[in-house]
Amino acid sequence: MFLSELISLNDALYKVNQNQKVLNTETIFLKDAQGRVLAKPIISYHNIPPFDKSTRDGYAVIAEDTYDQSNDIKLKIIDRIGAGDFSDKTINHGEAIVIATGAPIPKGANAVLMKEFTEEIDDYVKVYSSIEPNKNIAPKAEDIACGDLILEANTLIRPQEMSLIASAGYNKIEVFNKPRVKLIITGNELVEPSKELGNAKIINSNQFVISGMVRSAGAICDIEHACDDFDEIKLAIEKASKEYDLIITTGGTAISKGDLIVDVVQELGEVLFHGVNIRPGKLAGAGIINETQIFMLSGQPAAAMVQFDFFARPYIFNMQGINYKNISVKRRSNTQIKSRLGRVDIIKAYCDEDSIQVLKRGSGVIRSMVKANSYILLDENHKGIHEGESVDIMFFRDMVWPII
Amino acid sequence: MFLSELISLNDALYKVNQNQKVLNTETIFLKDAQGRVLAKPIISYHNIPPFDKSTRDGYAVIAEDTYDQSNDIKLKIIDRIGAGDFSDKTINHGEAIVIATGAPIPKGANAVLMKEFTEEIDDYVKVYSSIEPNKNIAPKAEDIACGDLILEANTLIRPQEMSLIASAGYNKIEVFNKPRVKLIITGNELVEPSKELGNAKIINSNQFVISGMVRSAGAICDIEHACDDFDEIKLAIEKASKEYDLIITTGGTAISKGDLIVDVVQELGEVLFHGVNIRPGKLAGAGIINETQIFMLSGQPAAAMVQFDFFARPYIFNMQGINYKNISVKRRSNTQIKSRLGRVDIIKAYCDEDSIQVLKRGSGVIRSMVKANSYILLDENHKGIHEGESVDIMFFRDMVWPII
Repeated sequence: MFLSELISLNDALYKVNQNQKVLNTETIFLKDAQGRVLAKPIISYHNIPPFDKSTRDGYAVIAEDTYDQSNDIKLKIIDRIGAGDFSDKTINHGEAIVIATGAPIPKGANAVLMKEFTEEIDDYVKVYSSIEPNKNIAPKAEDIACGDLILEANTLIRPQEMSLIASAGYNKIEVFNKPRVKLIITGNELVEPSKELGNAKIINSNQFVISGMVRSAGAICDIEHACDDFDEIKLAIEKASKEYDLIITTGGTAISKGDLIVDVVQELGEVLFHGVNIRPGKLAGAGIINETQIFMLSGQPAAAMVQFDFFARPYIFNMQGINYKNISVKRRSNTQIKSRLGRVDIIKAYCDEDSIQVLKRGSGVIRSMVKANSYILLDENHKGIHEGESVDIMFFRDMVWPII
Repeated sequence: MFLSELISLNDALYKVNQNQKVLNTETIFLKDAQGRVLAKPIISYHNIPPFDKSTRDGYAVIAEDTYDQSNDIKLKIIDRIGAGDFSDKTINHGEAIVIATGAPIPKGANAVLMKEFTEEIDDYVKVYSSIEPNKNIAPKAEDIACGDLILEANTLIRPQEMSLIASAGYNKIEVFNKPRVKLIITGNELVEPSKELGNAKIINSNQFVISGMVRSAGAICDIEHACDDFDEIKLAIEKASKEYDLIITTGGTAISKGDLIVDVVQELGEVLFHGVNIRPGKLAGAGIINETQIFMLSGQPAAAMVQFDFFARPYIFNMQGINYKNISVKRRSNTQIKSRLGRVDIIKAYCDEDSIQVLKRGSGVIRSMVKANSYILLDENHKGIHEGESVDIMFFRDMVWPII
């Protein structure tokens, strides 16, 4: 299949989006759920707090007993409640119960007097301060009531969600499966990293960067290296299409290799597009084989990374049931930036709060990718921008699976 | 040990910083290095590209042979170079060699003519466009020269660094060890998540949120649950101090439990501080036992999270050889925010580009932590701020191990 015409980035993204799949679900232990996505809403089994609880260490009392500070106040201690304990006694006027932070308020009491404002002598507590009703009590169900919807389906589970789910009473939950991605690296010239390099050989660095990006999008990645041979690639892709949730290839999308990958996809299934009006990354392709999505990335690492970030990353996120979109923010540019009208330019940059530094452009420049923390996006309607103009910035930090 | 006096956040951070440890190093395969930190600088074994290479599919030619477009130009094809191949032939005037993207430029040639501007007939190529010398050639060592320092020690390894290290010729590298953290959760009242809850019992949600945060800081976390018993806690902490790189405890720092944890640390080693002038999280403590750092966090999840983010997270990052500091940015507040003079207020918030939403405050409110994407910081010199004033925001996204 010959690369006849480039489609626009928006059209390419639309085609991918139209074919977005969401994976099946599985039930796992909550302790293993960090970075996974809820498949069902979480309804609380419990009130949180489960009872009126003390927020201080001190004495459960009847507030009214503390009002008259003109006389010495002494309350009789009738019980002691530690954390995890409770008292079945009822407080009457003139009585108090020692209580720990987090413990249930005993019957009859309506406030907790802080230890600091008291003195304990034998079985009595002397009260040096008055207190209002309800003071130092967190009422039952203040945070969450039994039956409350506490988390919607499709929520990413970070440590704080784990805590909330635990408090709601769940030790197992239903989540979307983790995508299994097959990365097929093509290129006769590629060899493993080593100190010595054969004639005309290039180190296979794509396997590291692309598999790492797959993992950073929450998926599992298996890697295979295929030579530039139609039958070998066909066998690898056909097998992967039956065993994996997604296939990513690098290399073999340019003319020299007879568009090997694209031809294979054409024969095995459907090519959604091949050639997108972006720079770098023009030779991006996508297709579907046996209902499995395949993204065809360039052999050049920096081009492949851009293609990954715009096509594969959102697809992998969304397979996990999360509604992900690449986010850009506006920044005023402190520099002139060149781009071509009619094409989306995706420019590696280092941006901080005040300035934008444009990094070296070109498909092969991996070093810029290491320095960059963002992409500058200049869409088809821009013929460069001038200093002082507003520009769209996509920060890498907003593209990562946020498992903080 | 009685909590007599609160120290300032800055003093507490200074004490932790003075005792910062950096872990030993180990040599691992590059494929396993994502999210690790380089212990040694990386010097390239190779030139990148390793040879003058073609950036196009087409014909290696002598540029001068294409200048005279007034006559038909036909060059004799004397060889073909695919990816991973090379030619030992030398091009003379009137000759061309078919060349693939990425392949080495043969001797004698000084430009690559794109396939699109040619036509191949038998063993000849007809040339329909002139070309300048050096066109479509990436010169040897254009990106990186053999012997170049390409990455400094103490660099976090993301996918793009993996790619660069591979290209430099390394399949194994030296990195700092991954911290092994022991999380000891104390509290007689704590039980595992379940649908049924015993009288006065509270679900142990801290184990999930704190272990998750430990992992999000690049470390390994083992969890133990100890009862509120001096000897039991002492045994657990002493053992952990010999087997782990860091200990984190939750609970047992308030007065009701006799400051159990603090007393144990006092007996086994040194308490650096106990009680910090922040809200929430006042009862934070830190100490050292058998040269192992221990952070004593509150039992209340939202307080423990703040204490983790300000003390444990930077410590864990820095153990791995990375120079981490909590970063805050300035934002104009669209709302009035209350705080107390003389204390650092750390307020959960949801901030976007235009607005700040203050979330419910208090130590126990885990639900706010789920909604929050940032902390508002109001230091000791603030007695609240007014609408329109500038305020410091710490985004959670800047606190995560950025393995994109």
